[in-house]
Amino acid sequence: MMDEKRTIVQGFRSGAVSSGLRKKGGLDLALIVSEREATAAGVFTTNQVKAAPVVLSEKHIRSGRARAILANAGCANACTGEPGLMDASWSADSVARKLNIPVSEVLVASTGVIGARLNIQCIETALPELVTSLSPQGLPWAAQAILTTDSFPKISAFDGSAKGVPYRVVGLAKGAGMIMPHMATMLCFLVSDIDISQKDLQRALVLGTEASFNRITVDGDTSTNDTVLMLANGLARNSPLSGKDRKAFVAGLEGVMKDLARMIVRDGEGASRVVDVIVRKAASRTDARKAARTVANSSLVKTAIYGQDPNWGRIMAALGRAGIRLQEDRVDLWINDVQIVEGGLGKGQEAEARAKTVMAEKEFVLGIDLNMGTHADHVLTCDLTHDYVSINADYRT
Amino acid sequence: MMDEKRTIVQGFRSGAVSSGLRKKGGLDLALIVSEREATAAGVFTTNQVKAAPVVLSEKHIRSGRARAILANAGCANACTGEPGLMDASWSADSVARKLNIPVSEVLVASTGVIGARLNIQCIETALPELVTSLSPQGLPWAAQAILTTDSFPKISAFDGSAKGVPYRVVGLAKGAGMIMPHMATMLCFLVSDIDISQKDLQRALVLGTEASFNRITVDGDTSTNDTVLMLANGLARNSPLSGKDRKAFVAGLEGVMKDLARMIVRDGEGASRVVDVIVRKAASRTDARKAARTVANSSLVKTAIYGQDPNWGRIMAALGRAGIRLQEDRVDLWINDVQIVEGGLGKGQEAEARAKTVMAEKEFVLGIDLNMGTHADHVLTCDLTHDYVSINADYRT
Repeated sequence: MMDEKRTIVQGFRSGAVSSGLRKKGGLDLALIVSEREATAAGVFTTNQVKAAPVVLSEKHIRSGRARAILANAGCANACTGEPGLMDASWSADSVARKLNIPVSEVLVASTGVIGARLNIQCIETALPELVTSLSPQGLPWAAQAILTTDSFPKISAFDGSAKGVPYRVVGLAKGAGMIMPHMATMLCFLVSDIDISQKDLQRALVLGTEASFNRITVDGDTSTNDTVLMLANGLARNSPLSGKDRKAFVAGLEGVMKDLARMIVRDGEGASRVVDVIVRKAASRTDARKAARTVANSSLVKTAIYGQDPNWGRIMAALGRAGIRLQEDRVDLWINDVQIVEGGLGKGQEAEARAKTVMAEKEFVLGIDLNMGTHADHVLTCDLTHDYVSINADYRT
Repeated sequence: MMDEKRTIVQGFRSGAVSSGLRKKGGLDLALIVSEREATAAGVFTTNQVKAAPVVLSEKHIRSGRARAILANAGCANACTGEPGLMDASWSADSVARKLNIPVSEVLVASTGVIGARLNIQCIETALPELVTSLSPQGLPWAAQAILTTDSFPKISAFDGSAKGVPYRVVGLAKGAGMIMPHMATMLCFLVSDIDISQKDLQRALVLGTEASFNRITVDGDTSTNDTVLMLANGLARNSPLSGKDRKAFVAGLEGVMKDLARMIVRDGEGASRVVDVIVRKAASRTDARKAARTVANSSLVKTAIYGQDPNWGRIMAALGRAGIRLQEDRVDLWINDVQIVEGGLGKGQEAEARAKTVMAEKEFVLGIDLNMGTHADHVLTCDLTHDYVSINADYRT
């Protein structure tokens, strides 16, 4: 866990309470508020079945301005139809009234079981305490409150400067299941005091998402609730943001998001290993991406990683069905710096024994050289374990 | 297990021995021989990484004629390069010499670990005993010898008649893992005494494959070794095959193949449930197929089935990412005859409780009405269990 002081961003207060929305108890309702209107940007799930809070937040964020994010765990408010949309609107309304701000400046996000109605009674009862709990030190509590099957809260920060003026970006995320590289995180909220135009903020957020949450996979399923929201309140007074400073901000934001993405995979449901699948020398960028995704999502590759078995035949088989330009006898495979396949053929038992040693580590790189061109891409994945099955067979019971 | 007498097809002899190719011992080398030249048809893996026996059999079957199939478990002879191709050729050569037939009339198939060389010494030593073991009653032994992680041999038969002349089709298959609806079975061999043209036989085999092995999934991985071979020796003397009789043959063959396909899913690695995912009223045939495949391959749906949890939200989420024309509020979901979702909304706890009871059965139907058009398709799948993970984490060790 990072130093609590580094999670403070001027002009933002956050809080969390236990509202009873999550059956097993604990913090489950979070609120993040900017003391002044902030520039807002968002990226949302590509799933056609969109949860009610996604539909509402997509509508509210169109203005490019927002002041508050209300998020809950325990209930996704997805597949709840018209009543679900009304519940989401109602919860945004309540927050707006409490904070005395326009309802269009309230964004909402939910995570948890699909198909159940949001218990608005729980939220109504908890709201006064939630608002009272707001404090500049509150972000770690908000990070805690949005977790479902996650085992640890995920926070990352970046301190930058623009025109010599310091600013800060802090992000929090939750993940664990239904993680697939199409807007992969379930929820991620970022706050900053940087002064930035909506266009620049949205662009940076899309770029950051592409490099981070769209490069991870846990189980190949895409959530109905995926939401990345960012509020920038401008209190750093660095305006206007120049070219070089903008670049530094984009890079810093991307760093925070990549950091959170890696934490999500590390905390993937049941995961015991994090593997960076890196594809190099592909014939095209699309080929590189397809190859990385297919290998990263293969159940047989993922169980082999769990078994610490450098079973490279399964990697070859996955590449063979990836729909890419491939010549079997050109493929080289690496586990970190141990080459296990050269020109499509195994390097033998000694190499595999060394690879097995590397695979005992918590994180390693699976390198794939296709030797068909000059393009590269990568996907962060985890192993498929007994615990993944346990968690998901028992989730609702 | 079916009546042994029903596995006898005139003019065919089969046998199996324990050659030592499979580490854990037991029958692992099978031979099927037609006493006269037979019409031959084949369907092979779509994986770009093709095992050596697939490459060789694709070459040999071009003539449309064959006499023998040699198949082994324990070693896939895949990703073995030029030496692997020579091993496959050599094994076909040895059989040809032993049986005194042209090598081009010998088809070969392998299943097992990818990346290991075929131990041709084992085959050479075992061949005399294998040829001695050939008998008209030998097919069940051949079915036993091609198993890897399968838990039971898979045989099915069909008795038909053409022009009043009786004929028989017997099929055997092995599956268990790397099962995905692109030529899904790992190995399937069919023999018949029907007299049929190569063109008709190949067409019937492709149609049958499409309706059976291309409609099942265990883990979404496609094998490097998938092979369906059929030999028809014409001894029934029913020639020529008329339109109506041809239709009956195609239907009978499809029945045998579907039967084998269902056995493969029933015996899917670690599977405890078989579920027929049926999509109806889709806007197009492609949509129906995509929807069925996406739901049938979702790890979250498969673990919910294992947990006997009618967690319909995961089905909705899978449909939402399937890339099909979808209106959430039109979707109806059924577990057998229990409707759990109507117009995109859950039917409530009582319906879910009844669905849960159905899900305690070994096999059931997951019905999906998209209400967007008139097209339908289906995929047979199984659940994702702790045993799947155990089997695949430990496979090579």
